[in-house]
Amino acid sequence: MTIVCPDRPGIVHAVTGAIVTAGGNITELQQFASADTGRFFMRVQIDMTGSDSSFTDAMSPVALEFGMDWILDVVGRPINTLVLATTAEHCVQDLLFRQRAGLLPVNIVGVLANQNVLGELVEFYGVPFEHMPIKSQEDKAAFEDRVRALVAEHDVELVVLARYMQILSPELCQELEGRAINIHHSFLPGFKGANPYLQAHRRGVKLIGATAHFVTENLDEGPIIEQNVTRVNHGESADALRVIGRDIESRTLRQAVGWYAEHRILLDEHRTIIFE
Amino acid sequence: MTIVCPDRPGIVHAVTGAIVTAGGNITELQQFASADTGRFFMRVQIDMTGSDSSFTDAMSPVALEFGMDWILDVVGRPINTLVLATTAEHCVQDLLFRQRAGLLPVNIVGVLANQNVLGELVEFYGVPFEHMPIKSQEDKAAFEDRVRALVAEHDVELVVLARYMQILSPELCQELEGRAINIHHSFLPGFKGANPYLQAHRRGVKLIGATAHFVTENLDEGPIIEQNVTRVNHGESADALRVIGRDIESRTLRQAVGWYAEHRILLDEHRTIIFE
Amino acid sequence: MTIVCPDRPGIVHAVTGAIVTAGGNITELQQFASADTGRFFMRVQIDMTGSDSSFTDAMSPVALEFGMDWILDVVGRPINTLVLATTAEHCVQDLLFRQRAGLLPVNIVGVLANQNVLGELVEFYGVPFEHMPIKSQEDKAAFEDRVRALVAEHDVELVVLARYMQILSPELCQELEGRAINIHHSFLPGFKGANPYLQAHRRGVKLIGATAHFVTENLDEGPIIEQNVTRVNHGESADALRVIGRDIESRTLRQAVGWYAEHRILLDEHRTIIFE
Amino acid sequence: MTIVCPDRPGIVHAVTGAIVTAGGNITELQQFASADTGRFFMRVQIDMTGSDSSFTDAMSPVALEFGMDWILDVVGRPINTLVLATTAEHCVQDLLFRQRAGLLPVNIVGVLANQNVLGELVEFYGVPFEHMPIKSQEDKAAFEDRVRALVAEHDVELVVLARYMQILSPELCQELEGRAINIHHSFLPGFKGANPYLQAHRRGVKLIGATAHFVTENLDEGPIIEQNVTRVNHGESADALRVIGRDIESRTLRQAVGWYAEHRILLDEHRTIIFE
Repeated sequence: MTIVCPDRPGIVHAVTGAIVTAGGNITELQQFASADTGRFFMRVQIDMTGSDSSFTDAMSPVALEFGMDWILDVVGRPINTLVLATTAEHCVQDLLFRQRAGLLPVNIVGVLANQNVLGELVEFYGVPFEHMPIKSQEDKAAFEDRVRALVAEHDVELVVLARYMQILSPELCQELEGRAINIHHSFLPGFKGANPYLQAHRRGVKLIGATAHFVTENLDEGPIIEQNVTRVNHGESADALRVIGRDIESRTLRQAVGWYAEHRILLDEHRTIIFE
Repeated sequence: MTIVCPDRPGIVHAVTGAIVTAGGNITELQQFASADTGRFFMRVQIDMTGSDSSFTDAMSPVALEFGMDWILDVVGRPINTLVLATTAEHCVQDLLFRQRAGLLPVNIVGVLANQNVLGELVEFYGVPFEHMPIKSQEDKAAFEDRVRALVAEHDVELVVLARYMQILSPELCQELEGRAINIHHSFLPGFKGANPYLQAHRRGVKLIGATAHFVTENLDEGPIIEQNVTRVNHGESADALRVIGRDIESRTLRQAVGWYAEHRILLDEHRTIIFE
Repeated sequence: MTIVCPDRPGIVHAVTGAIVTAGGNITELQQFASADTGRFFMRVQIDMTGSDSSFTDAMSPVALEFGMDWILDVVGRPINTLVLATTAEHCVQDLLFRQRAGLLPVNIVGVLANQNVLGELVEFYGVPFEHMPIKSQEDKAAFEDRVRALVAEHDVELVVLARYMQILSPELCQELEGRAINIHHSFLPGFKGANPYLQAHRRGVKLIGATAHFVTENLDEGPIIEQNVTRVNHGESADALRVIGRDIESRTLRQAVGWYAEHRILLDEHRTIIFE
Repeated sequence: MTIVCPDRPGIVHAVTGAIVTAGGNITELQQFASADTGRFFMRVQIDMTGSDSSFTDAMSPVALEFGMDWILDVVGRPINTLVLATTAEHCVQDLLFRQRAGLLPVNIVGVLANQNVLGELVEFYGVPFEHMPIKSQEDKAAFEDRVRALVAEHDVELVVLARYMQILSPELCQELEGRAINIHHSFLPGFKGANPYLQAHRRGVKLIGATAHFVTENLDEGPIIEQNVTRVNHGESADALRVIGRDIESRTLRQAVGWYAEHRILLDEHRTIIFE
């Protein structure tokens, strides 16, 4: 269960009271009171003997009193996930492999790509692959409508942009707010414009990294979920940086997706609260 | 406040109830139920408007009912700390510097060493330095009696072995159980016997590290508090490994001391629960 | 080209003279003189306009004079590699994926396993899979004879034990000396005996890692090639440690194999010299 | 010895020939040919039996032929270093401590600050401290003239801006080009404007770091020497980020200064070549 509400004394007591009433036992509890926004965040993992409805009966008055947004879910339930891709296979392959190996609680309902190169890989893992080229604004609108259709059809809870090299329309960004995750490379310092690996190489950066973040209308400025870096040196060409970057991207995206699937990410305005 | 008790439903509810009754507001709460030992661990940070005694009145019946060990302390209160040393200055210097810079909530009541080389450094930081050589069993007993006397005199809450190169007697280990922290180097794999840096060099290890742990009778086998590693390569001589090792030791010890001072370390038999 | 010989003045000059004579241009040069053994190690990457034989003509007198062991190879040539496995798929999958993606200069000639679970995965990548159960000493001898046969048949240059859960016989260890790489988990401190992840969990380790090393008769004591660690905490069960361990193992093994394939690993008695 | 020249076949051979002639033995050799600029970089560490002048005699014709810039220096000779500071003590303290402990081959000739708070600390380490307030353009010009005077008087080879919170004038940047090192915090993504730690906190970054770079006229855009990052989480206030940032800054600056002192940093236009 995750809870977000305005901070005030007595929240934890009230919530844990509801849990006791419903016959639950707490196995994990994390909470955070944001000094920035005055909001209170909580994630509780519970061993339940009673039914969901008895729990809801106990929680409802508490939620009403404290003005809570709350979600109850079963730990480990695979969340329905749609993957968007272009040509790069490293992130897609990593997600598919981990789903199959039981290392990531996702149910990937399909991979939708705007290029036609990943089909064989995706289908090896028994996941449907669709390809819709984007060569015009109409194509793009059609592609995004297909995203909407797949989301609706499969009750998709998370859309993962696994190196999908198109910018989502503002409308779709808004529709998917808080449930679409993107991965992109990151450098110290940041580089604007084309071919960032070449720029990073020319500047002689010593660390390259990746950032997983929620998709928002402002390109690459959504709330940050996870970041990782790897050390590089002067001997690495721009191409070598690209190869190294791929590994960090896969690792970082996988981590963000896993946390999302377990409801470990809550949003405090522009910041993520991560209950690892 | 930290709490340890047998795990059962209703603990969080009961404790938070006592906090509400005493007019406190929770700013940080971490808990962990150990599947290994069936014990429950909790750390709560509270904004208190009421008095300590009203809080104690509220907590006492709860503590009795659940069989709790509990401690209430003020966050950021410097804990009285005694440092034992020999000749190495890196860990001692790091602790003194951080105390003075306000980066570590400790009150170092003195440095007691069995060699006479660190006096000038320690006194620059305005901390008393004492030197008692250990050349016989009698010397060692006298040194340890002086430790006991300083602990009693200054209400010492933590004894830090900052590269103190003597083995504490089993009796003193027991007296200081859970309140003495040691730092030592660590390697993958571990090396037994003398001159581990030379052994590590000969084996060609690629990582060297340090482990901070509680002192127990079994040398270097106490509960682990913190560990760090750094990458090394074939070009590093055994001496160079030693220099690199010093930095990791300082960093690791400082972290362990800081967590201890903020009551972030709880013991679950041989494991530490760290509420970072 | 890699060179090993006794250290003495003039080696680099003589070797680079041979390169100049043969019309080569140095693009990468690394060397190391071991203070421990008095041996000299060098790796030179060369842009060659002339033929291999003209280079050999130029190098031969130099090699003779300095008592050199030397090897000339083409950078990026995939080396013939045999993978041994049991049931764990993470390392096997990682190697196959990287081979196909062109990220690892290996030509995996086959995967030989003593359990029958990895066939589908291996064959998806177009690599032959063989299964020979080991239930007796005779089975084991037969399995190792099959290893020898595959090594001979495919000119195998590297045997990778990708979580192959059998101990190689001393004879095979000797035959494959310096060309068989194993991966195993590593902890600070090390744990002896069965179920190390459980032991690590009980001791409350904060770092778990993996070590890739050459196979020698002394189990897990061969020269270390690469090591990595990841941070863990008290919340991780022994099973969770195992999952985390898998990722480190894959990464560490892949790195070791890549260095081997590019002749970046030289042996100085029990230590590896790594020319990254 | 370090060498920079246009890349062409035969350089290593010619240089090592000069070393052989002068009776030297190579203990460390690193070289790098830049594909970007066509320049060749080399660092050779030599055991010399002969005199410097015999070495110069042997090298001079080689240097002439290949158009080399070359420098010969004694390994481990402490370089004359001037430290500029303001109020922050973490970097200054780290450099002074390491100089005294023999861990950094620098001879700090003085600390010049535009605030008057670090005097006691600096003088404890037996290093002269000077204070010149900067409240006007005239003050600033006077301060920079004092820098020039100290550089001249003490043959200063390196100027370290250890959290010196003033921007150097373009003139002084040019005069000190390639021998002034600055440290500043770094984030993924970068933040422009005031109070970057607060911005980083609001954006919820998961990594904070530091970059050591050469000082150039373009503020914080000089060639990068070293970078490090540390992981942070949502619980860290902007102040906590600042404290964490200090440690990374100290470590990163110390590493850059050490490499500089050992002539391990060469410049390839805007990139550093680091021969670790």
